[in-house]
Amino acid sequence: MNRIPVAVLGATGTVGQQFVSLLDNHRQFRIVELVASPRNEGKRYKEACNWKLNHSVPDSIADMVVKTSDDPLSAPILFSGLDNSVAGPIEERYAHQGHVVISNASNHRMDPDVPLIIPEVNPDHFSLVRRQPYRGAIITNSNCSTMFLSMVLAPLKAAFGIKSIHVTTMQAISGAGYPGVPAMDILSNVIPYIAGEEEKMEQETQKILGSIGASGLEPARFPVSAQCNRVPVYDGHTETVVVDFETPDKPDIDRVREVLTEFRGLPQEKRLYSAPRQPIIVLDQNDRPQPRRDVYRDNGMVTFVGRLRRDPIGDIKMVVLGHNTIRGAAGASVLNAEAFIALDYFPV
Amino acid sequence: MNRIPVAVLGATGTVGQQFVSLLDNHRQFRIVELVASPRNEGKRYKEACNWKLNHSVPDSIADMVVKTSDDPLSAPILFSGLDNSVAGPIEERYAHQGHVVISNASNHRMDPDVPLIIPEVNPDHFSLVRRQPYRGAIITNSNCSTMFLSMVLAPLKAAFGIKSIHVTTMQAISGAGYPGVPAMDILSNVIPYIAGEEEKMEQETQKILGSIGASGLEPARFPVSAQCNRVPVYDGHTETVVVDFETPDKPDIDRVREVLTEFRGLPQEKRLYSAPRQPIIVLDQNDRPQPRRDVYRDNGMVTFVGRLRRDPIGDIKMVVLGHNTIRGAAGASVLNAEAFIALDYFPV
Amino acid sequence: MNRIPVAVLGATGTVGQQFVSLLDNHRQFRIVELVASPRNEGKRYKEACNWKLNHSVPDSIADMVVKTSDDPLSAPILFSGLDNSVAGPIEERYAHQGHVVISNASNHRMDPDVPLIIPEVNPDHFSLVRRQPYRGAIITNSNCSTMFLSMVLAPLKAAFGIKSIHVTTMQAISGAGYPGVPAMDILSNVIPYIAGEEEKMEQETQKILGSIGASGLEPARFPVSAQCNRVPVYDGHTETVVVDFETPDKPDIDRVREVLTEFRGLPQEKRLYSAPRQPIIVLDQNDRPQPRRDVYRDNGMVTFVGRLRRDPIGDIKMVVLGHNTIRGAAGASVLNAEAFIALDYFPV
Amino acid sequence: MNRIPVAVLGATGTVGQQFVSLLDNHRQFRIVELVASPRNEGKRYKEACNWKLNHSVPDSIADMVVKTSDDPLSAPILFSGLDNSVAGPIEERYAHQGHVVISNASNHRMDPDVPLIIPEVNPDHFSLVRRQPYRGAIITNSNCSTMFLSMVLAPLKAAFGIKSIHVTTMQAISGAGYPGVPAMDILSNVIPYIAGEEEKMEQETQKILGSIGASGLEPARFPVSAQCNRVPVYDGHTETVVVDFETPDKPDIDRVREVLTEFRGLPQEKRLYSAPRQPIIVLDQNDRPQPRRDVYRDNGMVTFVGRLRRDPIGDIKMVVLGHNTIRGAAGASVLNAEAFIALDYFPV
Repeated sequence: MNRIPVAVLGATGTVGQQFVSLLDNHRQFRIVELVASPRNEGKRYKEACNWKLNHSVPDSIADMVVKTSDDPLSAPILFSGLDNSVAGPIEERYAHQGHVVISNASNHRMDPDVPLIIPEVNPDHFSLVRRQPYRGAIITNSNCSTMFLSMVLAPLKAAFGIKSIHVTTMQAISGAGYPGVPAMDILSNVIPYIAGEEEKMEQETQKILGSIGASGLEPARFPVSAQCNRVPVYDGHTETVVVDFETPDKPDIDRVREVLTEFRGLPQEKRLYSAPRQPIIVLDQNDRPQPRRDVYRDNGMVTFVGRLRRDPIGDIKMVVLGHNTIRGAAGASVLNAEAFIALDYFPV
Repeated sequence: MNRIPVAVLGATGTVGQQFVSLLDNHRQFRIVELVASPRNEGKRYKEACNWKLNHSVPDSIADMVVKTSDDPLSAPILFSGLDNSVAGPIEERYAHQGHVVISNASNHRMDPDVPLIIPEVNPDHFSLVRRQPYRGAIITNSNCSTMFLSMVLAPLKAAFGIKSIHVTTMQAISGAGYPGVPAMDILSNVIPYIAGEEEKMEQETQKILGSIGASGLEPARFPVSAQCNRVPVYDGHTETVVVDFETPDKPDIDRVREVLTEFRGLPQEKRLYSAPRQPIIVLDQNDRPQPRRDVYRDNGMVTFVGRLRRDPIGDIKMVVLGHNTIRGAAGASVLNAEAFIALDYFPV
Repeated sequence: MNRIPVAVLGATGTVGQQFVSLLDNHRQFRIVELVASPRNEGKRYKEACNWKLNHSVPDSIADMVVKTSDDPLSAPILFSGLDNSVAGPIEERYAHQGHVVISNASNHRMDPDVPLIIPEVNPDHFSLVRRQPYRGAIITNSNCSTMFLSMVLAPLKAAFGIKSIHVTTMQAISGAGYPGVPAMDILSNVIPYIAGEEEKMEQETQKILGSIGASGLEPARFPVSAQCNRVPVYDGHTETVVVDFETPDKPDIDRVREVLTEFRGLPQEKRLYSAPRQPIIVLDQNDRPQPRRDVYRDNGMVTFVGRLRRDPIGDIKMVVLGHNTIRGAAGASVLNAEAFIALDYFPV
Repeated sequence: MNRIPVAVLGATGTVGQQFVSLLDNHRQFRIVELVASPRNEGKRYKEACNWKLNHSVPDSIADMVVKTSDDPLSAPILFSGLDNSVAGPIEERYAHQGHVVISNASNHRMDPDVPLIIPEVNPDHFSLVRRQPYRGAIITNSNCSTMFLSMVLAPLKAAFGIKSIHVTTMQAISGAGYPGVPAMDILSNVIPYIAGEEEKMEQETQKILGSIGASGLEPARFPVSAQCNRVPVYDGHTETVVVDFETPDKPDIDRVREVLTEFRGLPQEKRLYSAPRQPIIVLDQNDRPQPRRDVYRDNGMVTFVGRLRRDPIGDIKMVVLGHNTIRGAAGASVLNAEAFIALDYFPV
């Protein structure tokens, strides 16, 4: 099979490194270009990059010379791990030039005609690209914390309707990129604030779980109350969630577990390369999921649910966990690209 | 002033060490007896105790010989830092013998005639001791996480009424005692479960904020939805809280801040020795309070509130923080003893 | 190929879990029996075991029923991850019964006729088993910190002779087993003491690098000054090492790097299943090796060297790193078994 | 007593904050000016400063308006917590203007006529200021790791002579300033490299323990082999040390302990305000000193020694610990100023 040439924007950053790692040996894609900031121009990737993952830089990519975002690119698909401070106009420019930009940056997520996709949840939102002004397209995935919450809410909404959501996150330091959080701020500490994160969780969740109508996307209406914290964990965002259902016939816990466990979507049906076999795994031990122990399983693409139980105010409460830089970032983008192709949107 | 002789039960444990530290040089109390498990019988305290605080064992106490709970005690007031696995019958026996047991253990907290006291909040509950079958008495303070939550809810309930509470905790390892949490379980990890903790928060909060009637204590009725987590923090429990008020006239944030800031209780009025000048301090920086940076201020006796803001579902959300082994445990007991004396319940 | 049936002693412990993980899908071995403490007798492995690794319990083993060390075993080869407090007599008994016990426990390491093996370094020491009084045999691997030090010293000794060694270790918490180090002792802390560790490093290194003569094993004579510390790291022991050579012609750093990099031994020559392609990897970045980033590479079987440079007192100094529960424990035992078979010592 | 007006240079940094904390309520000094980088010019200190200590900004200083290093200063004594990247010329300029600059920066430490002082060890080196070309003077204290090592070596050198030193450090993150070490680099990790640190330990130790002769300072000649590591500890540098003595009559451990314990210097004789009663405390428990538990005792001004024992190669080995931002930085400077005044060097 001929692999599609792709480029990685922001290739030396935390998310960019995950892109490089996930796309190495990918069945459908082949990295042909790496783009980083001007200070790295002309360097080999292994020199430009302060590699932070605990396996080596892939041999096939280590010596690739890094380009800058001023350079024209040949790859039709670009994966963007660009920082939000610069991503907006760069992604637009490349989309105007005809590239399909599969972006993890937040800049365009809430644009009305940019799909914010979880392929298991809302692949029909891809159709928004037809409304875009670009020769190419921009496709986004959600904020990492939003990803795991929306994944879990999707089957629950379909089965029982959602009235409201309370969520508190305990987020890993790798979610802040590198250098990111100073050690002096987080060692033996909790920072009860992450700029913009609560707003993203509240808005992006509504967009992802919204529906496509004649006039575009109609967001879901249930309110989300989010409180976001940084904790001294390397990888994995843990979330405590209370869900209040719309249905008057309150489901019992076994029924909720069944709905979550049996959930499947497009990536599973089409057997996409990066798809987890089962998007949501419910753990029954009372002290799981835990980021250190669970988040690396199944290539970091699974969303874990644990401590499923009745809530004294809402209907159920539970703990949700996912790998923030894989399923919550680079892995989400890669799966988005696979789904985009599987649905014959590409070439645009 | 003659200082009242006191004993510490469970003197070598994590809470016991805080008792020893807080009672050293106390204006009203003087430690005359230390009680620990039989394996330490006859040892000097400095040898019996694996001292974990970051200042030295007080000189006045280092060489005191440790007794066991089978020994008769001369001190009229006993501070109990006993582990829940043994505290129940030992505390009862001493109370029957005429001692006033000021306990941090959970065993008797929910007994109908045992007061569960925060002196700023419900000093009138001390009157329950008159219903006790003991020649002495048992007085308890709450679970550490409950302490900070109830402290904050008390003035809010008085001003606006409470309809419901959602709380998620991020609790320090020192709350589990020693040896407590294995490092392999918590380094770079979150454990989303603490046995019995959620139930304690849900029930103890209702008891503390309940009212004394002719037939005894009537618990408050608002439901509490609690989700408790252990995080890699040494001292300080952080809690994210959403409060829904009863009052139809929703207060604005400035009014809520004012109510919290101006809250004072018996310890402040009577200028009790261990009382913080201001029981609740509201911080305005958007990333505070933080356990490492705030929890040691004002001798660990203050409850901090931060990130006070409107909630999309309930009325307000905020972050609450307190020192779990001081205000949430040993310091709470010591302040209870001071209040008990100030209200002339002692000698019983 | 018929796989040899093996058993794991101490199968539920930290090292035992690594045995289970490494032996699952092993080309030569097949786990047929799991032995744990009496309190787990009759339980399925997945229930008996508090599994701590960040992948799942292998399916093939999850439901195996756990035996106790009183039970007779059918497997000819037993891997022992038993705790030192019980390993001694149990291993002896099984060896008398005819089993080959490949042990990670320290009890028999210094027995004169028990080989203490690193297959790259001293495979000729296997011949000591002929002096053993057992129908079977006991084969041991070294203490984890000793492993990485001895691996690095072996080629240096061959090339330049060793006059003396100064080593300071910074050891991971997983080296202390589970529950092991209490979090209250190690969070944001260093414990400058590990019971027995310095003596092991000083003595085991001399035995491993010793030579076999007519009268048995003659230990190497160079003195080792070891200082062992526990640090808040999950996996991976880091060691700072100063080496003083015997040779009067002091080698330059490039020559030392070459000697380390080109070192190969029996496992590489025989292409043993668990052998790293290259036993020692020298890293050139000035801030490597680092436990979190390097220790999981190459299946945890490599010893890393970094910061190779001249020393103002001895000849060279460097940093050494290895995975303490894999190459430093279970992986070492598995490789020992593979080497034992490759050298036709098995069946005994 | 009239307190001498002083200024703090680099007042908002990690060391600057410790200066502010230590000088608040100081018996001899009164902060009248705070100097920070131009971006903070004109701000109040509490706004300019991202305060990181776990008590509050002193009230007396919180509202002081911050100056820049271009401003003329009125205080005769300046405490410099400036970063090395800028300290050199700024300190020189102020010294030329007549100020006494008491500096923690490394820039001028190795200048031949700049004294590098530990008041307990080499107060006679203050006389070097007479050789300086400044109307004022520059006085420096050592690198933090050097401080604790030199303190311990001073009495040992006097008693037994020093032949050589091997030292490995495990250094706290607060030693790297703020933002300093990224959390992604140090959580559950060791970084076996700190730029320039080993050279500083090797050279500064020789200067401090050198002697003043007719032609200036003659450094001590014994070689120091240093290996420096960063570990996930908030405050406190731990060092493993092997000392080889010159004396042919090797002292026993009790004699070494006695020499260390009985060591006193100028700060103790003159009862200087910031002086610890005893500069070196030897701990006898086999797992001490530990940074989290010991480093905050006695106001962070003590150097702790533990695990004093014979070494198989050199004469003794031991563990050394001190508070890197107090005794190892700001507290060292403050004590230097007190000693400078006590010896009547001031006013210059």
